[in-house]
Amino acid sequence: MTTSDTRPFCAAVDWGTTSFRLWLLGRDGTVLGERRSRDGMQSAAKPGFQAVLEQHLSAVKAADDLPVIVCGMAGSRQGWVEAPYVDAPASFDAIAGGAIRVPDMARDVRILPGVAQRPGMAGGALAGDGLPFGPDVIRGEETQVMGLGLSPGSLLCLPGTHSKWISIGDQRIEAFSSFMTGELFQLLSTQSILRHTLDAEADVMAESASFIGGVEAGHGAPALILNRLFSMRAEGLFGSRSPAKALARLSGMLLGLEISGAAAIYPQRSVFLAASGPLFDLYRTALAATGWTVTVADADEAVRKGLMAGALQCFNPA
Amino acid sequence: MTTSDTRPFCAAVDWGTTSFRLWLLGRDGTVLGERRSRDGMQSAAKPGFQAVLEQHLSAVKAADDLPVIVCGMAGSRQGWVEAPYVDAPASFDAIAGGAIRVPDMARDVRILPGVAQRPGMAGGALAGDGLPFGPDVIRGEETQVMGLGLSPGSLLCLPGTHSKWISIGDQRIEAFSSFMTGELFQLLSTQSILRHTLDAEADVMAESASFIGGVEAGHGAPALILNRLFSMRAEGLFGSRSPAKALARLSGMLLGLEISGAAAIYPQRSVFLAASGPLFDLYRTALAATGWTVTVADADEAVRKGLMAGALQCFNPA
Repeated sequence: MTTSDTRPFCAAVDWGTTSFRLWLLGRDGTVLGERRSRDGMQSAAKPGFQAVLEQHLSAVKAADDLPVIVCGMAGSRQGWVEAPYVDAPASFDAIAGGAIRVPDMARDVRILPGVAQRPGMAGGALAGDGLPFGPDVIRGEETQVMGLGLSPGSLLCLPGTHSKWISIGDQRIEAFSSFMTGELFQLLSTQSILRHTLDAEADVMAESASFIGGVEAGHGAPALILNRLFSMRAEGLFGSRSPAKALARLSGMLLGLEISGAAAIYPQRSVFLAASGPLFDLYRTALAATGWTVTVADADEAVRKGLMAGALQCFNPA
Repeated sequence: MTTSDTRPFCAAVDWGTTSFRLWLLGRDGTVLGERRSRDGMQSAAKPGFQAVLEQHLSAVKAADDLPVIVCGMAGSRQGWVEAPYVDAPASFDAIAGGAIRVPDMARDVRILPGVAQRPGMAGGALAGDGLPFGPDVIRGEETQVMGLGLSPGSLLCLPGTHSKWISIGDQRIEAFSSFMTGELFQLLSTQSILRHTLDAEADVMAESASFIGGVEAGHGAPALILNRLFSMRAEGLFGSRSPAKALARLSGMLLGLEISGAAAIYPQRSVFLAASGPLFDLYRTALAATGWTVTVADADEAVRKGLMAGALQCFNPA
């Protein structure tokens, strides 16, 4: 008999700040149903997290007693129920074990915690190397890591508004570093004086020479970033760089700066890159231009697989 | 007879983006009258620059034929009449010689130009050193330099929204570097995710230990800036740094980053600092903490003296 795999074992939810994604999963991880929506943490607060979740569960015909596992910002202090951070270094077991059950619900809903890197605690096995880890947090990315199955010693890069570089140990997260790259790019391209000299809607990869020039500038001279940013304003006044090329250069400079920072923190020069869309191309190009070996990791499947791993531990303890 | 000094020789105007300042000056530079207002370039455009100027001249009882010299953003493309940049390296004579007379006015009004540092042209005498100057512009600061009387080889720091570091030659400006420090501080403290973890109204100098800690972090590891910025967000979640201390640390990190950039561009480790109010204290503290020798330069008198020097050349050629 193999029909048991078509019976739902749980629902798995990746519940971010602005997005919601649900999978109906069999015991072996088979996808039996799926929902995507914009019901992220920010918009779900008003109708209520429970109501939003039940509506999506009903749409995939989930039974009333089907358990649900959740990761992401729904577990933050501003979310549904806070799942307090577990401390780094954090084993996958400790992460799954830190899941919080949503109270006052007949249905068993567990929210996975994020991971915190606190001052004086960062690094664990790496701490002896004196590597410069700062206070940091991840929430949601730990579940991607659990699903990726990377071997110990791997380094993972997850681009985003706050990109994350994560050092992987044996079934655990050793340490990590977030960079404000994406947010700073947004601020500078839309709110700063540079907005007058660049085209914030341009396609950065269509100006790859300008992008790579920016990567080299940001990577080669991090101390000069505040000056090189102003230089773009001067170039705008001189008319010496088109607005589309200026956007590409700005993007490149900030990615180059991030990569030079990651290179100061991590000893590796090979990295697994998990991203989709334009960010994947930008990071792959920037990493290659600065001497890194890049291996593609599947970000999309990773969250689902990580949630499944957590669900097996939460709902089916050995 | 010394009474001639009490007869007005010209009016001198420092006309910035958001401020207007006028002095009525005797031939020897004696101040015979003064006006300050918020009639900067942005607000003067609507009533008209000429009307605003004449109103202030009338208030100090200036004669109809009194000549006027102007510096600052009123000479930019978005200002009153554009006074095109002169190229660096720029002698004080070339700057005064680049003044543009406002057309269609009976009164003789001259607007001093800014200075441009164009790609491939930067540095002049310094270019042989291979120092990393970028494309850059100043407008208004060149007049301060003309008034300061610094000896050749001096380095000047003028803090502000876009702070300026200027290398001084023999009666000329050799090269310069602008840094987006002030603007980035504003953006990060009021528009970024960090706004939730800091008190944008706090007094930075009242938290001097946090400020200096930030200076050391930004100065010591420029490549890590994007990561250290995010670390402040994590510290906010951990409750491990007060909002006032966080603002001071952010300010320090950005000043430290700027100073590390200036140190990569200029060989000096002593600098003249011209600023007023809180910025003066912050820069003096940050420069001292990073090993610089700081000498105070009077920014307020400098503009007036520079305008007077320009006026003597424009209205009273030898």
